[in-house]
Amino acid sequence: MLASSSPRRQDFLRDLGLDFRVLPALTEEARPLPGEAPDAYALRAARSKAENVRTRIAAGAEGFPGRAAAPLVLAADTIVVLDGDILGKPASGADALAMLERLAGLVHTVITACCLWPAEDRAPCAWFADAAHVRFAPWPRGLLEAYTATGDPLDKAGAYGIQGRGAFLADRIEGSWSTVVGLPVSRVVRALLDCGALSGPRA
Amino acid sequence: MLASSSPRRQDFLRDLGLDFRVLPALTEEARPLPGEAPDAYALRAARSKAENVRTRIAAGAEGFPGRAAAPLVLAADTIVVLDGDILGKPASGADALAMLERLAGLVHTVITACCLWPAEDRAPCAWFADAAHVRFAPWPRGLLEAYTATGDPLDKAGAYGIQGRGAFLADRIEGSWSTVVGLPVSRVVRALLDCGALSGPRA
Repeated sequence: MLASSSPRRQDFLRDLGLDFRVLPALTEEARPLPGEAPDAYALRAARSKAENVRTRIAAGAEGFPGRAAAPLVLAADTIVVLDGDILGKPASGADALAMLERLAGLVHTVITACCLWPAEDRAPCAWFADAAHVRFAPWPRGLLEAYTATGDPLDKAGAYGIQGRGAFLADRIEGSWSTVVGLPVSRVVRALLDCGALSGPRA
Repeated sequence: MLASSSPRRQDFLRDLGLDFRVLPALTEEARPLPGEAPDAYALRAARSKAENVRTRIAAGAEGFPGRAAAPLVLAADTIVVLDGDILGKPASGADALAMLERLAGLVHTVITACCLWPAEDRAPCAWFADAAHVRFAPWPRGLLEAYTATGDPLDKAGAYGIQGRGAFLADRIEGSWSTVVGLPVSRVVRALLDCGALSGPRA
């Protein structure tokens, strides 16, 4: 059970050929606590989403017939960090352009935290944060304006998507590309193997 | 004019909002010369494709009304290099599985060379090779078999696509993700700006 409404996360699970359903978490957007490190914040947000959905499934809510129909909940939270600041989703086109101009020419960090939680257990079976470093070329303002005008930045942390229309922005990554998109698929597959949730293709 | 039939390269140009047409090069698959470095080989292959299409356009062939309708040709060539060996497209499913087992647990290099050639000029306006390093996790054979069975590896150098079904394979990249897919979009956009081929969004 994917605890996320992100179409990009759904695409990843579909591409993997996994059998899954979607039930977005009903949690308020978390806020960083004073002094909380960015990865700790992302981990807390992912765990909170997983717990919300796991509790609702175990209670038989939302029309889901209990645990048997959804043995494992997967939640994720992605943040963009520059100079210690966490950049969220932009509030407007002008806000998006300001974020992009701030990122241009610099290296920032994208952290995606994941939490895998079996519906019948009291604790997650896997819980981790994965970080990737992304370098933006020093793009001219006109190009960033044209990208902002496409509307692509508006629903994305840090005001860009590294896939699709925003693919030109980053000229270098160190880390996992899928972590930047919003789901570290390599570590998720490894965690699914470790949690015993992948049958069939195991060696 | 994109001198490639690759749907992934076409997707990149479409995502960028560029106005382009497709005319695949009519060149035989190049072979590395004795002692030729992998990046030199990829550069030669990309230039050969661009020259083929540029010549045909300039001659008014293929129903294209000369230079005015296609001012700039873009060609690319992508290779996968492991321990100095160039891995091409697999000849069969068994060949694909053998390549994937060879790549598993190791870091390999993906090189995409590009050539941009104005139809009216005797030389390219931009010509470069971009390299990225990709690490595969040590996946169990069963998972590689399941991926091979999807058919995804068969039309791809190195027997994998880093986008789509193969996204889980690489747990780390150093370099540009789009270079691994087959077109270094960031450097292509920069080259288009430098060649004067992008109007409008320039600052």
